[in-house]
Amino acid sequence: MREFFHQSLEDVQERLVEISDLVTVAMDKATQAFSASNVALAEEVISEDSIIDEKAVALDELAIEILARQQPVARDLRIVVTALRVSASLERMGDIAEHIAQLTRMRFPERAIPKGLKGTFKRMGELDVEVARTLTELLRTQNLELIEAIRDADDQIDELHISVFEKVLGDSWSGEAGATVDATLASRYHERFADHAVNVAKKVVYLATGDWNVDTDSITIIAEQAADTES
Amino acid sequence: MREFFHQSLEDVQERLVEISDLVTVAMDKATQAFSASNVALAEEVISEDSIIDEKAVALDELAIEILARQQPVARDLRIVVTALRVSASLERMGDIAEHIAQLTRMRFPERAIPKGLKGTFKRMGELDVEVARTLTELLRTQNLELIEAIRDADDQIDELHISVFEKVLGDSWSGEAGATVDATLASRYHERFADHAVNVAKKVVYLATGDWNVDTDSITIIAEQAADTES
Repeated sequence: MREFFHQSLEDVQERLVEISDLVTVAMDKATQAFSASNVALAEEVISEDSIIDEKAVALDELAIEILARQQPVARDLRIVVTALRVSASLERMGDIAEHIAQLTRMRFPERAIPKGLKGTFKRMGELDVEVARTLTELLRTQNLELIEAIRDADDQIDELHISVFEKVLGDSWSGEAGATVDATLASRYHERFADHAVNVAKKVVYLATGDWNVDTDSITIIAEQAADTES
Repeated sequence: MREFFHQSLEDVQERLVEISDLVTVAMDKATQAFSASNVALAEEVISEDSIIDEKAVALDELAIEILARQQPVARDLRIVVTALRVSASLERMGDIAEHIAQLTRMRFPERAIPKGLKGTFKRMGELDVEVARTLTELLRTQNLELIEAIRDADDQIDELHISVFEKVLGDSWSGEAGATVDATLASRYHERFADHAVNVAKKVVYLATGDWNVDTDSITIIAEQAADTES
C-alpha cells in the first residue's frame, strides 16, 4: 500500500509537469501559427487542446483519490493540494493557446496580426513560450529562483500589452474596426497567459516551502534561504 | 476535536457562499457603475476587491489546515476539495468586476459604453449578476437544478457577446478605435465572468454527488435523480 502511495505521489508531480509541458508546446505552436498565418499548425493546437483538458481532469481525479485513500500529510499533502489548486490554471493556459490559434484560423488566408504590430506580437509570443517553459521547469525542480524569471517576462509582456493599446489608440493607427478587435483580443490573450503562469508559480512557493500567502517580492529572499538550507 | 472539525467544515461552506455573495455584490455595483458612468460606485468595487482576494486565500488556508489535521473523508472531503478547486475562480470573477469598474473610471467623465451598445451591455450586466446570484444559491443549497439556470444565462450572454462583435464589425459602426477597444474588452469581461460561474457550477456537481467529469448535459438527469433520492 505504501508503495502504491509513493508511486501515486510521484505520478501527481509528473503529471503536473507533463500538462505544463503540453501547454508550452501548444503556446509555441499557437504563437508561431499566429505569426506566420499557418492555419495547419493552428488546427493542430485546436484539436490537441482536449488532451490537456482531459489530463487536467484526470489529475484532479487522482489527487482526490489519494486524499481519500491515503490521507497524506506534510509535503505529500502539499503536492496533492497544489495539483488541485493549479490544474484549472494550466488548463486555462491551454485554452488561451487555442484562442490564439482560433484567431489565426478565423482570419486565414488574411493575417490575424494587424499591420504595424507584427514585431510586438512576435516578441509577446516568444516571452509567453519562455514563461511556460520556465514554469514547467519550476514545477519539475521547485527551484524557486526560477520565479523571478517568470515575473520578469510577465512584466515585459505587460509593457508590450500597453504598447499595443498605445499603438491602436494613436494617431497613426489606420486599422479598421476588425483589426482593432483582433489586436485587442490577441494582446489580452498573450497577457492573460503569463498572468496565469505567475499565479501557478505563486502556488509552487507553498508547495516548496509550506509558506502561505507569501508576498512575491520576498520570493527571492525565500529562494536564497532555501538554497542556504540545502547547501 | 470532533466538534472543532464539524465547525470548520460548516465554516468552509459558509465561506464559499460568503465569497460568492461578495462577488455578486461587486458585479452588481460594477455593471451599474458601467451603465451609468458612476465613478464613485466604480471606486467602491475597485477598493473592495482586495477583501474578496483575502477571503479566497483564507479559505484555501482553512481547507488545507482541515486536510492536514482532520483527514476528512467522503462528503466532508468533497467540501474541502471543492473549496480548493473553486476559490481561484471566484476570486477571478471578483477581478473581472474590478476590470469593468476600471474601464468606467478610465473613461470618466465620458461614458465607457460605446454608442449603440448601451442596451446590450445593460442586459449582459443583468445576466451576469443573475448568474452570480444563482451560483451563490447553488453553493448554499447544492440544488443542482439551479445549474440549468446558470447555463441558460451563460448561453444568452454568449449570444450578446457575439452580437457586440457583429455590431462593431458591421457597416453602421462609426466608433473610433478607442470605442472599439472598449466594446471588445467589456464584452469579453462580461462573457468570461459567466464562463467562470459555469466552471464553478460543474465542480458543485462533484461536491453534491461525488460524480466526476459529468457531462453537463446530463446534469438535469442527475438533479432529477438527486431530487428523487431525497424525497
